[in-house]
Amino acid sequence: MRLSKRMKKMEDKELLRLMEFAADPEMISFAGGFPSPETYPLEEIRESFLAVLESYGQEALSYSSTSGFLPLRGKIANRMNNKYKTSLTEDEVIITSGSQQALDMSGMLFIDKGDMVLCETPSYLGALNIFKAYGAEFLEVPTDSDGIIPEALEEKVREYGDRIKLAYVIPDFQNPTCRCWTAERRKDFMSVIKHYDIAVLEDSAYSDIAYDEMDRPPLISLDENGQVINCGSFSKIFCPGFRVAWICTKKQMIEKYMLLKPSIDLSSSSINQRMIDMYLEKFSLDKHICQIIELYRKRRDLALKTMEEYFPETVRFNRPKGGLFAWIQLPEGKNARELLELALKKKVAFVPGGSFYSKNGKENEFRMNYSNMSEEKIVKGIKALGEILTVFLK
Amino acid sequence: MRLSKRMKKMEDKELLRLMEFAADPEMISFAGGFPSPETYPLEEIRESFLAVLESYGQEALSYSSTSGFLPLRGKIANRMNNKYKTSLTEDEVIITSGSQQALDMSGMLFIDKGDMVLCETPSYLGALNIFKAYGAEFLEVPTDSDGIIPEALEEKVREYGDRIKLAYVIPDFQNPTCRCWTAERRKDFMSVIKHYDIAVLEDSAYSDIAYDEMDRPPLISLDENGQVINCGSFSKIFCPGFRVAWICTKKQMIEKYMLLKPSIDLSSSSINQRMIDMYLEKFSLDKHICQIIELYRKRRDLALKTMEEYFPETVRFNRPKGGLFAWIQLPEGKNARELLELALKKKVAFVPGGSFYSKNGKENEFRMNYSNMSEEKIVKGIKALGEILTVFLK
Repeated sequence: MRLSKRMKKMEDKELLRLMEFAADPEMISFAGGFPSPETYPLEEIRESFLAVLESYGQEALSYSSTSGFLPLRGKIANRMNNKYKTSLTEDEVIITSGSQQALDMSGMLFIDKGDMVLCETPSYLGALNIFKAYGAEFLEVPTDSDGIIPEALEEKVREYGDRIKLAYVIPDFQNPTCRCWTAERRKDFMSVIKHYDIAVLEDSAYSDIAYDEMDRPPLISLDENGQVINCGSFSKIFCPGFRVAWICTKKQMIEKYMLLKPSIDLSSSSINQRMIDMYLEKFSLDKHICQIIELYRKRRDLALKTMEEYFPETVRFNRPKGGLFAWIQLPEGKNARELLELALKKKVAFVPGGSFYSKNGKENEFRMNYSNMSEEKIVKGIKALGEILTVFLK
Repeated sequence: MRLSKRMKKMEDKELLRLMEFAADPEMISFAGGFPSPETYPLEEIRESFLAVLESYGQEALSYSSTSGFLPLRGKIANRMNNKYKTSLTEDEVIITSGSQQALDMSGMLFIDKGDMVLCETPSYLGALNIFKAYGAEFLEVPTDSDGIIPEALEEKVREYGDRIKLAYVIPDFQNPTCRCWTAERRKDFMSVIKHYDIAVLEDSAYSDIAYDEMDRPPLISLDENGQVINCGSFSKIFCPGFRVAWICTKKQMIEKYMLLKPSIDLSSSSINQRMIDMYLEKFSLDKHICQIIELYRKRRDLALKTMEEYFPETVRFNRPKGGLFAWIQLPEGKNARELLELALKKKVAFVPGGSFYSKNGKENEFRMNYSNMSEEKIVKGIKALGEILTVFLK
């Protein structure tokens, strides 16, 4: 059978492979971007589910409205407003089936073949992959540990002008590098971009997983022209199995997303939306998030300490202030894909960094998730990786 | 903000409007394709859910594998094999988030701008809409009450040859007309199409809602070359709120869908898949379907009887042998969209037929759903529509 031309660009099986690593119980996988299942509040979910069936009966099992369950949209808007001094209403929120769907819909909404998507270097491979499917070319903007460099941004948007329709950025604890833009860089970014007719897709999937206090206003709170589309998710702060996430943006733009949603999956799961709404009604999500953060902070500290102890000195890594990942740099000229093949033989997995570059990937980096493995496995896996590295870097 | 060119084709707000009609409690809506919530087995679902949390714990709340929950895929394969003498394995099944997602993924997988999709006349508007988003042109094949006409099919595929990559068909109780292809027409269709390199997307969303015994082998059971991609759903036979559906096809093709799934929504809801799997384990879906059929048969009979009594004689309609719809024809030259505007004022809704044509729509038809409204509302709504029609057709 003849497939579409875009399938040639979809052959990067990296995400698929991550999922497979996760399924092998013997693997110590630092590969996924998964939260830790032990944090999922089983009892509270049971109670919320029973309350949903009690309160809504069969209605909870029907199709949802296209934009999603109204009370949940209201709660998401309120939460944003309380945290970030935005003034969102429930009409400025649409529910999506995971935030990956928000990325897919954004690709469908904005990108024609040959359009440019401006992004950080490196960036989230799941976003790069779906934007490629819509024919995007990528304009990588030089990025340092404080975020996108404003002078470089200015230069790029001036040079490529009208060809850029979308900027995709992850200011909070970015996937894969875990860097967090400074408040100043956020303001600088908006003050450059506001002069151009470019939509800004702000991916906030990791925003709530912060280990330190920092001033980091989301771009949507600095938006003067209604340019910013902010997407967030319950996957990392609650449970990914419900597939409930959201987009916040001006009503006019929400209406465009609503034109797509029926053609993509009709609506998101009605019962799952109500379940999360009921949980938010009955329990404190913020308290739950605090507990998650404590656990992940411990694992981050343990992972860093163990890497310091067992990784060769020429291997460099950052100290993430939030999120689920550490970003590791091998000496120049060394290839993380080759390292992965050696590691897999010892049942340790991670994601080579090259996949996170839209083009001309640097091959000497890799991403390590520390949230999903037990303390014991973190130590065991990093020790094993240290031994492999010592030989590999000789 | 500048949107993609495809958005110009997505401005048909018909599906969106259907959902809105459904949300207005005062509306007697014959518009949706919704099952009747009173059929949803609330108690069994509660029990299954509790059993899922008991058996799987937090695992049920994590991401699902890309292809979906293995035991559920096995049960879907077995069910197909028992009913249709296919020999599917669990590896030949992938779970999708509703069967609308199966259509979206198929569009992404096959269609490049300018490719032709061969379809029935008329056809499901949700499929036409998403295929349009991928740049499809449509090749409508003349279709009568027995299905696609084989001579017309032969002529079309010969004439347009390589431009056709996908044929989209709904042989069982088609949406919108509710026609069901005869066994002979199914065989004829396959014996024409097997000589061409065309993928066949067989939409079986309504297959289980049959009021009469009929010999209607699915195309996938007649497939010699691995051309057929069959999609089915729990939405109409169980509950739509879980968003769990499936695609069955050869493993080689399933692997192509698996390349797309992570970029589209990462995975379908893990807990919802397990919930349905547990329900299938503990209860009889077929017994449940029998109960649904009895209810819908009664509603079909009541709707037909009431239409016969109150609709003017010049209004024609078929007697559906399955599915959820009746297809109504007004005299030539009359416009069902105009009729709808009058009906909405009296709080009665349906879907004008023009939306189901990919081009040159006939405007004198409309689709009426009879599964979703109570007996009382069916009578009240059809009576009101009869009064409006009497004036409208004068």
